[in-house]
Amino acid sequence: MSEAVALVCGGGAFPIVAARAVQARGEHAFLLGLRGIASAEIEQFPHVWLGIGQLGRAFDEIFSRDIKRVCFIGGLKRPEFTDLRLDWGGIKRIPDIVKFLKGGDDHALKGVIKLFESEGLEVVGVDSFAPELLAAQGDMAGTFPADLADDLAFARKFLSDLSAYDCGQAVVVAHGRVIAVEAVEGTDAMLARVAHLREIGRFRAKGGLLVKAPKRGQDPRVDLPAIGPDTLRNAETAALRGVAVAAGGVLMLDRAGLAAQAARAGLFLHGFAETP
Amino acid sequence: MSEAVALVCGGGAFPIVAARAVQARGEHAFLLGLRGIASAEIEQFPHVWLGIGQLGRAFDEIFSRDIKRVCFIGGLKRPEFTDLRLDWGGIKRIPDIVKFLKGGDDHALKGVIKLFESEGLEVVGVDSFAPELLAAQGDMAGTFPADLADDLAFARKFLSDLSAYDCGQAVVVAHGRVIAVEAVEGTDAMLARVAHLREIGRFRAKGGLLVKAPKRGQDPRVDLPAIGPDTLRNAETAALRGVAVAAGGVLMLDRAGLAAQAARAGLFLHGFAETP
Repeated sequence: MSEAVALVCGGGAFPIVAARAVQARGEHAFLLGLRGIASAEIEQFPHVWLGIGQLGRAFDEIFSRDIKRVCFIGGLKRPEFTDLRLDWGGIKRIPDIVKFLKGGDDHALKGVIKLFESEGLEVVGVDSFAPELLAAQGDMAGTFPADLADDLAFARKFLSDLSAYDCGQAVVVAHGRVIAVEAVEGTDAMLARVAHLREIGRFRAKGGLLVKAPKRGQDPRVDLPAIGPDTLRNAETAALRGVAVAAGGVLMLDRAGLAAQAARAGLFLHGFAETP
Repeated sequence: MSEAVALVCGGGAFPIVAARAVQARGEHAFLLGLRGIASAEIEQFPHVWLGIGQLGRAFDEIFSRDIKRVCFIGGLKRPEFTDLRLDWGGIKRIPDIVKFLKGGDDHALKGVIKLFESEGLEVVGVDSFAPELLAAQGDMAGTFPADLADDLAFARKFLSDLSAYDCGQAVVVAHGRVIAVEAVEGTDAMLARVAHLREIGRFRAKGGLLVKAPKRGQDPRVDLPAIGPDTLRNAETAALRGVAVAAGGVLMLDRAGLAAQAARAGLFLHGFAETP
């Protein structure tokens, strides 16, 4: 049983695909579904359901199975402290929890990792068992247009500088100009805004691209940014030319499916190499 | 006639108030209304109407009146090159115009100033004849809460760093976290977004403040950010605690009226000293 991974499951289909990937490697996947957040589909695997504040129970379930590795996977809205409904194992850790709930999301997630590591667990990223869930390098659909090289470099530098503030992981740039910046609203809402700016004539320049990357210094074991079918659909509605993501740094549930969708929509889909 | 100011008038009420301020100083105001953009109210002053591409005509009108000083005042959406409908005086300057329409708003506006200065005109800011149209320093309504000092400093540093990218001039921050960043959509749309994030439960922390400041290194003679009744109304709807603006760096059409509105809404309205 030491070749087992505990998957702490947020929302969406990533936990399911990740669990299948663990099994495909001949290892055992044990899923801890966050109640009200994770999909009922996790029940096809060995699992328990937990409230987000049931830290003590989470550790008990993991330790009783002699599991050493934990992976956080799936979407999770940032909880308010009052929503946590801590169990006794959580209450004991309140000082730590309060500390990591202050500040941006990244700070909070680093705190969660520390909390698990301080219990002797190894926190692993999805790349350690399912690298196919991350963006590939190079052209995944279409060809990255050479005339957008400057805009891509500009957007990457912008996101990198923004990282210090632990806010958005995506930006829309057109012709050297920042059109929209993502913060709490998320990428889909930002792209919907860009489409609206087009409708009302506030953004009329042709083209533009969405650039998405993890924050500089972000721990790849938690909360990597993701793109999915909605991202591409919204990018198309916003009349962008394409989407560029950090290779190995952005989650893609179904890389081949997304590439095909991008190609159908006439969007390029490009994975740029992350500079060290 | 040398004690005259030519006001190139964008939208809204600022050009009218500025023209009155010029007259109150015993000087002569000549208004160049941008057709389809400036308010018909400019017609109560000596004026002409011009298309935004009629640069040659603008210079002719200014020179024929022996006016030496020009002030740009009022809102102006960034035009696309194809909207300019340049006259001959504009066509002659196409190389310059193309240069300054690339890149962000600030770059474009610096280009416009250079274009006017290269004709021997002095481009002045509204502060030179109507400092009462700019935010005052200190508490204009309520008292700036001491517990928001860190958030204000954080927001100011954020806006300062963002300046390098020539995008938004406003940010909403709460408890050390960036909630929304303004880019092309403008402050009102950004605040509406924050209100929406509250509605859907994505932004549930109490408080938060709007911080607005000119870009670092922005030429105060063009396109200073502004706040008005809508800003305060939207800040109230977004359940923010108040609004902090750069003293002397943010336009306020009716400072006393805005202060009274903020006080009624229970919002603080604070002007912070710009660091040199």
